[in-house]
Amino acid sequence: MKRYKMIVAYDGTNYHGFARQNEAITVQGTIEKAIGKITQEEVLTLGAGRTDAGVHARGQCVTFDSETKVPANRLVKAINSQLPPDIVVQSVEEVGEDFHPRFGAKRKTYRYQIWCGALPDPFTYRYALHYPYKVDEKKMQEAANHMVGEHDFACFCASGSQVKDTVRKIYSIDVKRDGNMIAIDVCGNGFLYNMVRIIIGTLLYVNEGKLSTAEISEIISGKDRKKAGPTVPPQGLTMLEIIYE
Amino acid sequence: MKRYKMIVAYDGTNYHGFARQNEAITVQGTIEKAIGKITQEEVLTLGAGRTDAGVHARGQCVTFDSETKVPANRLVKAINSQLPPDIVVQSVEEVGEDFHPRFGAKRKTYRYQIWCGALPDPFTYRYALHYPYKVDEKKMQEAANHMVGEHDFACFCASGSQVKDTVRKIYSIDVKRDGNMIAIDVCGNGFLYNMVRIIIGTLLYVNEGKLSTAEISEIISGKDRKKAGPTVPPQGLTMLEIIYE
Repeated sequence: MKRYKMIVAYDGTNYHGFARQNEAITVQGTIEKAIGKITQEEVLTLGAGRTDAGVHARGQCVTFDSETKVPANRLVKAINSQLPPDIVVQSVEEVGEDFHPRFGAKRKTYRYQIWCGALPDPFTYRYALHYPYKVDEKKMQEAANHMVGEHDFACFCASGSQVKDTVRKIYSIDVKRDGNMIAIDVCGNGFLYNMVRIIIGTLLYVNEGKLSTAEISEIISGKDRKKAGPTVPPQGLTMLEIIYE
Repeated sequence: MKRYKMIVAYDGTNYHGFARQNEAITVQGTIEKAIGKITQEEVLTLGAGRTDAGVHARGQCVTFDSETKVPANRLVKAINSQLPPDIVVQSVEEVGEDFHPRFGAKRKTYRYQIWCGALPDPFTYRYALHYPYKVDEKKMQEAANHMVGEHDFACFCASGSQVKDTVRKIYSIDVKRDGNMIAIDVCGNGFLYNMVRIIIGTLLYVNEGKLSTAEISEIISGKDRKKAGPTVPPQGLTMLEIIYE
């Protein structure tokens, strides 16, 4: 039995999220069926992170164990031949049996896209929040800088989440503009449930003057979800990259 | 009765082309229904060009006549509120009753996109041809330069087309690369059926060495569709812009 590590890109629009479900079409379920057709085994995969319905990935990491005789360098093409065009395996490599895509991850980077044109855009509505308002990206960057570092981020965790340890480290948040498209890259050692989407909602509150840059540190130290901004919709979010040791 | 000119952008993936059909969902049919809900009239539109199934537009021009009391500057938002997210009206203005979106067009620009990464891309497969080969964009540009000018383009017209006058003027063809994405903009005073897609197929034949740059002029003067390259698939094509007098 060998363990394989895959990097997978997908457009999450047409899936009920990443995580396998019995009654719904998911990214994980679709990938497992495709691998199974190639290896003729019943394959169970592990993902680095469960992306919600509508969330995309360029660098989701997925592992599986198999006794297939197909060499790793042929598996990319073989598995892709069994996948729909909105899920594409980027690479497959053999890894040690102790490799775990979630526990082994050291850094994860997510991108959130905001389309701030006055009108919606038919080519990016699946990949960006339409936010037809003035965006002061410098002000948002300034507020974001107050989030960087190791903190108890209970304020940015979806209420109802069962997780006990809410301390995470954010390495960087970069707010960039290209015309009417704003891209915010958030890199950290791990994220609480909906954390990136609440961070973006909080930065938009700063943009709108509903929160000041100076209040960010108070919100974090207050650990109260209700003091932070709203959870922005899923379609703007993409899991960009996961770094392992 | 007033005539209105709209600029419309759409992702053509989910439509059976632009032109109205009784039994299929089309861009034009969808737009007419949306306008009708706002003006409470049975509206018939005219488009600058019929885009095929899977073809997109950023600057399709659509006209309609109406007695609506809604001011033109409010119609954009009103009509968009009745449209699905893959069709977005960009502007509405009142024009003279002699304005015709097809006959009045002086220049049209189409873009064809080619994704030449080794692997398919789940975010652009609806908008670009996947062509996982080396692309020599300079060679393609050189071949394209031989197509510019006023010529009888019978060689680039889909066989079976009923059109009699096959003389058209191409103002420019620009081949640009951005990483693995090649964008080819073709600007002319009008185009024969499938002309842009056959031009792109011919440029790809040049890229592959199946045709030489020098042969382009011969192909044009020979007026034989069979001597040109293949018709590339629709999804890479976008109607970019139409210029009126």
